Amino acid sequence: MALHLAKAGHRLHLWARRPESLRPFRECDAKEYASPAEVAAQVDVLFTMVADGPDVSAVLLGPNGVSSGARPGLVVVDMSTISPETAREMAMRLAVHKVDFLDAPVSGGERGAKEATLTIMVGGKAEAYEKARPLFECMGRTVTRIGASGAGQVAKACNQILVGAGIAAVSEAFQLAQKSGVDPVKVREALLGGSAYSKVLDLHGKRMLEGDFAPGFKAWMHQKDMRIVMEQAGKAGVALPTAALVSQLLNALVGSGLGEEDSIAIYKVLEKLSA
Amino acid sequence: MALHLAKAGHRLHLWARRPESLRPFRECDAKEYASPAEVAAQVDVLFTMVADGPDVSAVLLGPNGVSSGARPGLVVVDMSTISPETAREMAMRLAVHKVDFLDAPVSGGERGAKEATLTIMVGGKAEAYEKARPLFECMGRTVTRIGASGAGQVAKACNQILVGAGIAAVSEAFQLAQKSGVDPVKVREALLGGSAYSKVLDLHGKRMLEGDFAPGFKAWMHQKDMRIVMEQAGKAGVALPTAALVSQLLNALVGSGLGEEDSIAIYKVLEKLSA
Repeated sequence: MALHLAKAGHRLHLWARRPESLRPFRECDAKEYASPAEVAAQVDVLFTMVADGPDVSAVLLGPNGVSSGARPGLVVVDMSTISPETAREMAMRLAVHKVDFLDAPVSGGERGAKEATLTIMVGGKAEAYEKARPLFECMGRTVTRIGASGAGQVAKACNQILVGAGIAAVSEAFQLAQKSGVDPVKVREALLGGSAYSKVLDLHGKRMLEGDFAPGFKAWMHQKDMRIVMEQAGKAGVALPTAALVSQLLNALVGSGLGEEDSIAIYKVLEKLSA
Repeated sequence: MALHLAKAGHRLHLWARRPESLRPFRECDAKEYASPAEVAAQVDVLFTMVADGPDVSAVLLGPNGVSSGARPGLVVVDMSTISPETAREMAMRLAVHKVDFLDAPVSGGERGAKEATLTIMVGGKAEAYEKARPLFECMGRTVTRIGASGAGQVAKACNQILVGAGIAAVSEAFQLAQKSGVDPVKVREALLGGSAYSKVLDLHGKRMLEGDFAPGFKAWMHQKDMRIVMEQAGKAGVALPTAALVSQLLNALVGSGLGEEDSIAIYKVLEKLSA
């Protein structure tokens, strides 16, 4: 994602927890720093992309974090998938330093990141969004401001419900076909032309049938995202039975030692049930 | 569907349980008969389209049914959604009369039928399929022979799992957004551009958000189709937890007195849960 910014002519100011993460930038117009605070002191727009809420909090608000180096007017964009509540908290804590915060989680996986075809779902103030938009457009194909702080994360939660439920449903359909003596390859082809069409049936379904469970998007990350979904459901007071089922299937998948495979390996959990 | 055949220049020989069903054919090159047996005596390819397995059995094998009037070499095509097992039974019972049987359920709803854009999933012998194919192509856009007798019905069962799970997941995503104070219209727009894309999110999702629950495809018919899915899952020995959940949501929908609405009214069941 950062390489696309460099390719578009932007100077990069970099920090990473693991030095090897910076290896791809050796040929770029890029400078490395010793802390998030030092980066924050140099830039107008600062991106974070880490695994979970506590990581974002540490980078932004921890010792030598972004908030301790930021100049007023800085726009901080977190592209990690974290809870809407943590996103809103980050926005409030940074506002004290006159720093704007956008939650801007992405969908599209490793491939979307490499090909700059990500879907980027943004929450935060409209003015801050307008500043960051040209940069988003270097990294993604569909860039949408959903609403106020946290709204990007809510949209991402919705995305993960749809993709997860899609994977479970496609897995079940293929297994019903197989166990009924019918070729799931033929079923998939027929269904792609009708109202059952989905990107999950098309792209993920193809890989399931080829037995290709390499990530893509790792199961443990989808499990983490469904934890966020179910937490948010609890806070918002909304029952999500399908999402709850997907969440349990991901628990079983990670619990089976397959957390490093793609989350389409939900197929294997459902297959094992009736094997 | 039959009107598309007439439009393509085929002479229609018609019978219907309710005379009013034949009203649209008054302007066509069409002749009405007093029983399925009389129709069967006139035609090379005979189509049935009724609600459920017992209806198909009555029309094909009952008194004055197709089998009592059929000439050897007749191809009977049933486009109803019935169980794969009933389809295979029909094929065997008609084979005694040297009549070929194709199960050819469709997906695409009323709109697909009117616009001749149906997905048609066919099970049965390849030679019989080749005879009927030009006629299928008058009615549908995606016509696929899935495999032997019953395979079309298995594919349709898979289709109904995907559409039903899609409706449930989209409903949950929209309600999570709404209850989290985020506009589901914006969420839908953003998600259409990414890996969460599905026809259900696109077409059905739009109607959900507009509050348009007119059929389309009636809830009680989807409930019946999910009964077939779960019966087939039992016979095939495969656990389908997502499909089972969809089936329960449809039970609740029909039980709430909303069986005549579109099956996207699953949205209302899920909404009511947290209202």
